[in-house]
Amino acid sequence: MSRTIAVLGGTGPEGFGLAVRWALAGETVIIGSRDAKRAQEAADKIRQRAGANANVSGRENLAACALADLLVLTIPFEGHATLLKQLKPALRPGSIVVDATVPLAASVGGRVSRTLGIWQGSAAQQTAELVPSGVSVVAGFQNVGADILNAEGPVDCDVIVCSDDIEAGKTVRTLAAKIPGVRAIDGGKLENARILEHITALLIGLNLRHKGHSGIRITGLPPGAYAGQ
Amino acid sequence: MSRTIAVLGGTGPEGFGLAVRWALAGETVIIGSRDAKRAQEAADKIRQRAGANANVSGRENLAACALADLLVLTIPFEGHATLLKQLKPALRPGSIVVDATVPLAASVGGRVSRTLGIWQGSAAQQTAELVPSGVSVVAGFQNVGADILNAEGPVDCDVIVCSDDIEAGKTVRTLAAKIPGVRAIDGGKLENARILEHITALLIGLNLRHKGHSGIRITGLPPGAYAGQ
Repeated sequence: MSRTIAVLGGTGPEGFGLAVRWALAGETVIIGSRDAKRAQEAADKIRQRAGANANVSGRENLAACALADLLVLTIPFEGHATLLKQLKPALRPGSIVVDATVPLAASVGGRVSRTLGIWQGSAAQQTAELVPSGVSVVAGFQNVGADILNAEGPVDCDVIVCSDDIEAGKTVRTLAAKIPGVRAIDGGKLENARILEHITALLIGLNLRHKGHSGIRITGLPPGAYAGQ
Repeated sequence: MSRTIAVLGGTGPEGFGLAVRWALAGETVIIGSRDAKRAQEAADKIRQRAGANANVSGRENLAACALADLLVLTIPFEGHATLLKQLKPALRPGSIVVDATVPLAASVGGRVSRTLGIWQGSAAQQTAELVPSGVSVVAGFQNVGADILNAEGPVDCDVIVCSDDIEAGKTVRTLAAKIPGVRAIDGGKLENARILEHITALLIGLNLRHKGHSGIRITGLPPGAYAGQ
């Protein structure tokens, strides 16, 4: 049975796009937001797209966290550490925190095509430091742009998933592969999340320069390396 | 008319693979090496693959540099700064130095799937600091693996090219697009080279984990963003 997915920051374009895709795939999704009313409005919008029977609801972030043990962080980096500190008492051992956050320099008034240096190596590794022990952190979805997720049709992008917890990584790859077009790839340990975060800055730069909605595909791996199609 | 290309470190697998591909495309290529004899042997091997009429010769690195104004660096990072300091008196204004070097931690006994932090931001930016003024530095080819270049058939990989010199970047994109299968993409300023270098570490990790020869493709850009096919 699939776990309930709480998308924290799910009223923003990236989280909304992921929530739509998972709702369309039949998953149970809770939109989390600082503001419960905005979360419910986003859930209503998702039902309009995914059908009235879609299992989508909206809650304040902490309430969403209490109802799910698979949490996806899609928040701007400036709110990253603060949210994690708020969530800490609500995070239960065995939960998975999927971090899609990218530490763009825009968080501190810089460019969207540059990243900040994170002491721990990446936003996802910062997350690993901020969650209670027994909670697994998985990095993924940084390179699938909101515009692509919110458009119709298959997503022409691979999702590389990094984690120090092999089972949690597998769970998240299965979840990624539910998005049509996405192939999920095991990208190794959580420390590699820094590369995924940097790739996002490159893709944003390409989008600005070439007026596109870029993504990446990994070529040349044997078929068994890809989950999904 | 195409410029003569000197591939410094061209006896190593990455440089050799690029030299073969350009020789096959009809370019004039000089293999540079610390050892002129080894350079000539590599040139002989390339002629065996690309045909007896291929314009390929082998020289000691400095001699190669004297005969070409388009230099491609494909040397291990541990020899990077030293070679550039040796080359400096031989580099003429108007020359282009293409840097494909990746600062893998293996250079100092660490892992091939990790990079070193470079003070200037990337190996390519270190190069920019070490060349005389008037010489343009272009970053590219980091993400096209030697095994892929040395295999037969088209290369299933895009080449992202970064430079602060727009014309030099264009020249190198044209050169990249001469490799069958490669699409060359303007990746913006040289500072973005750090991301290309990091991607190589990710791809090496994927190769080790999944037993493949991985590369990347950028999806979702308008056709005009890609040179080549």
